[in-house]
Amino acid sequence: MKPRNAFYAQSGGVTAVINASAAGVIETARKHKSKIGKVFAGRNGIIGALAEDLIDTGKESARAIAALKHTPGGAFGSARYKLKPFEKDPAQYERLLEVFRAHDIGYFFYNGGGDSADTCLKVSQLAGKLGYPLQAIHVPKTVDNDLPITDNCPGFGSVAKYVAVSTREATLDVASMALTSTKVFIVEVMGRHAGWIAAAGGMASTKELELPILILFPEVPFDQPKFLARVDETVKKHGYCSVVVSEGVKGPDGKFLSDQGLRDAFGHAQLGGVAPVIASMVKSGLDLKYHWAVADYLQRAARHIASKTDVAQSYAMGRAAVELALKGHNAVMPTIVRVSNRPYKWKVGTAPLDKVANVEKMMPADFITADGFGITEKCRQYLAPLIQGEDYPPYRNGLPDYVRLKNTAVPKKLAAGFKV
Amino acid sequence: MKPRNAFYAQSGGVTAVINASAAGVIETARKHKSKIGKVFAGRNGIIGALAEDLIDTGKESARAIAALKHTPGGAFGSARYKLKPFEKDPAQYERLLEVFRAHDIGYFFYNGGGDSADTCLKVSQLAGKLGYPLQAIHVPKTVDNDLPITDNCPGFGSVAKYVAVSTREATLDVASMALTSTKVFIVEVMGRHAGWIAAAGGMASTKELELPILILFPEVPFDQPKFLARVDETVKKHGYCSVVVSEGVKGPDGKFLSDQGLRDAFGHAQLGGVAPVIASMVKSGLDLKYHWAVADYLQRAARHIASKTDVAQSYAMGRAAVELALKGHNAVMPTIVRVSNRPYKWKVGTAPLDKVANVEKMMPADFITADGFGITEKCRQYLAPLIQGEDYPPYRNGLPDYVRLKNTAVPKKLAAGFKV
Repeated sequence: MKPRNAFYAQSGGVTAVINASAAGVIETARKHKSKIGKVFAGRNGIIGALAEDLIDTGKESARAIAALKHTPGGAFGSARYKLKPFEKDPAQYERLLEVFRAHDIGYFFYNGGGDSADTCLKVSQLAGKLGYPLQAIHVPKTVDNDLPITDNCPGFGSVAKYVAVSTREATLDVASMALTSTKVFIVEVMGRHAGWIAAAGGMASTKELELPILILFPEVPFDQPKFLARVDETVKKHGYCSVVVSEGVKGPDGKFLSDQGLRDAFGHAQLGGVAPVIASMVKSGLDLKYHWAVADYLQRAARHIASKTDVAQSYAMGRAAVELALKGHNAVMPTIVRVSNRPYKWKVGTAPLDKVANVEKMMPADFITADGFGITEKCRQYLAPLIQGEDYPPYRNGLPDYVRLKNTAVPKKLAAGFKV
Repeated sequence: MKPRNAFYAQSGGVTAVINASAAGVIETARKHKSKIGKVFAGRNGIIGALAEDLIDTGKESARAIAALKHTPGGAFGSARYKLKPFEKDPAQYERLLEVFRAHDIGYFFYNGGGDSADTCLKVSQLAGKLGYPLQAIHVPKTVDNDLPITDNCPGFGSVAKYVAVSTREATLDVASMALTSTKVFIVEVMGRHAGWIAAAGGMASTKELELPILILFPEVPFDQPKFLARVDETVKKHGYCSVVVSEGVKGPDGKFLSDQGLRDAFGHAQLGGVAPVIASMVKSGLDLKYHWAVADYLQRAARHIASKTDVAQSYAMGRAAVELALKGHNAVMPTIVRVSNRPYKWKVGTAPLDKVANVEKMMPADFITADGFGITEKCRQYLAPLIQGEDYPPYRNGLPDYVRLKNTAVPKKLAAGFKV
């Protein structure tokens, strides 16, 4: 019997290591050619499936696929595109299966966060209902670290490492300038709903190199007087401090601090980050000299300082997804199971998708110190192994030698297009 | 004859590699104990000399001093503190020499940019006038790359590498999201007066990995319609683009774009960067989805991705400063002389301080493309060797193992203090 083909797609915000998962999927599938035929990738994620715009990964050399392990971004294109609920738009799901059928796709590997886990589950259910044989496996990925069951999410460890390293470096900079210049440094990091990434800023300070760092979590309602008092006290004691602020910090009114309606001189709305808002408070409330940074995409694309643990786990999730499919699994997601902390050991587990979809894992309350501005020892123990190890990309002329794939299109088989 | 002591101070904004120059000074001095006694460092730069707050670097182990080579920030503290002209405040200069005399300081190594070169020269001249035997050597350092005579400035290469690497990474991120999400990514970099750092963003795109990147230089008056037309054209062609904007970009009125007077909802002034200003223009002018980042201190502290060339040159400048002193030089600065481009070869030269002080080296006009948004091949040839090579710090538990010195104070000898 001719082996059936696989479809792989990247979903949502990309990371420094999502391509390592892609490499895990493709390299593992290539080792099982008797069971998996071609691996097609969706150009721009699930949109590629809907539009029948498939990429033939078989046209890429082994070397190019291996290079995905050290290349950030989404090599096939990703998409912020959530399928509507089945009842509201069955045509989308039917089209997906129509495309899968046309290209004899028997394996669906969907690489993303909570939304894509939900889509993956629904596609699997619909295929079952319609009697189309399909194994749908979700490959976890999200810098937000908010998927349930899995101990941590591929992509998070590398952002965490970037934030910890950068906060340590910038804080040393501020420490040396504080007497005559900047006393408060504010860095804004990602995390609209949960403070996992902000928490990583706390790792910059260790017993060997203590640094005064305050963290503003989305989990803790922002209290301006309390915050300013704490900055004042810290600067009086140490001469300076750094503030790691999550983009998702909200005021007591529940509104994002970053949405406070900045206007330019002409009254036009300004779309600002939260770092300049905090900076203005420090200036007007304490009259301390400040500097601020917004890491934005720099943090989630920073493959140059990726965590070795994260790269290994991302690859392992891709590989495990294929292995689960080969074992006959459907509607599941491989997970990372923490076996021990010291030494850090982990193994691959499995979670059923109906337990993953639409569940958001928040930061445990006991990961945040009582004052709301720091991380607890328990949080440190959780984060420490995730930022372990360096996995440097190769360099060429001083720059990381990232790969760009050929991304050759698979000839279309369907007469009709599909309006996405 | 008892060897005379040396005084070393860091000045102005610190860099990822200024401590490598400190290591060069201290390690070289330690090899010549018959000629140089103790090496004292100024706590918080020149303020340490004025306040007679000296650090005895002899109390630091060889290992700690060697670790300076991979530690960012200013290990002894730096200062934004410019001495007033001699005629206006002779007391400051007299105090400096009084402290030098009290601690038998015969060598003055001042590690900074243009202002400190000027101070170094004036101290040297005054010592000569007063018959106090002193050799004053300036050690070049500035991320702004604006010192004359020297081919490039220690500190610049590492920021340039950080900006090139980060721009490449973030642009790959945007490329993968552009169809359904961000189409324009804006990153703000340092360079109040010259576009050297912004130019480095152009290095992110190479023949092997072409990326659509527009650069906004302080040297090119900002023309909003022309800029927006160019963004529009680039996004239409590639689907996305990155914009690297120098903090020093000015409008046709000569005012900084970042100083356009942002106000919050209550009318309070907001101290913003230029990236959100550009972002707002892209939004209101083209209605394209954007993201923006402000690298701020993250860029100049990023020792984790320092340029190997830069680390080597920074160390060499410190070592050369001591060697120049031992050869009897005074009022000079070691320089980097480019010998050849391919292969890149450089050697140490010397410049008299009166040719260095108060001269700012701007970017040559032929380094910027005719349209004003890119770098020329000539610029690439200049920048390429400066970002060459990686020089990773050692890591401990996932974080760079940066050193914090003991910074033991030297007992004061003078009865009087000095109000800085």
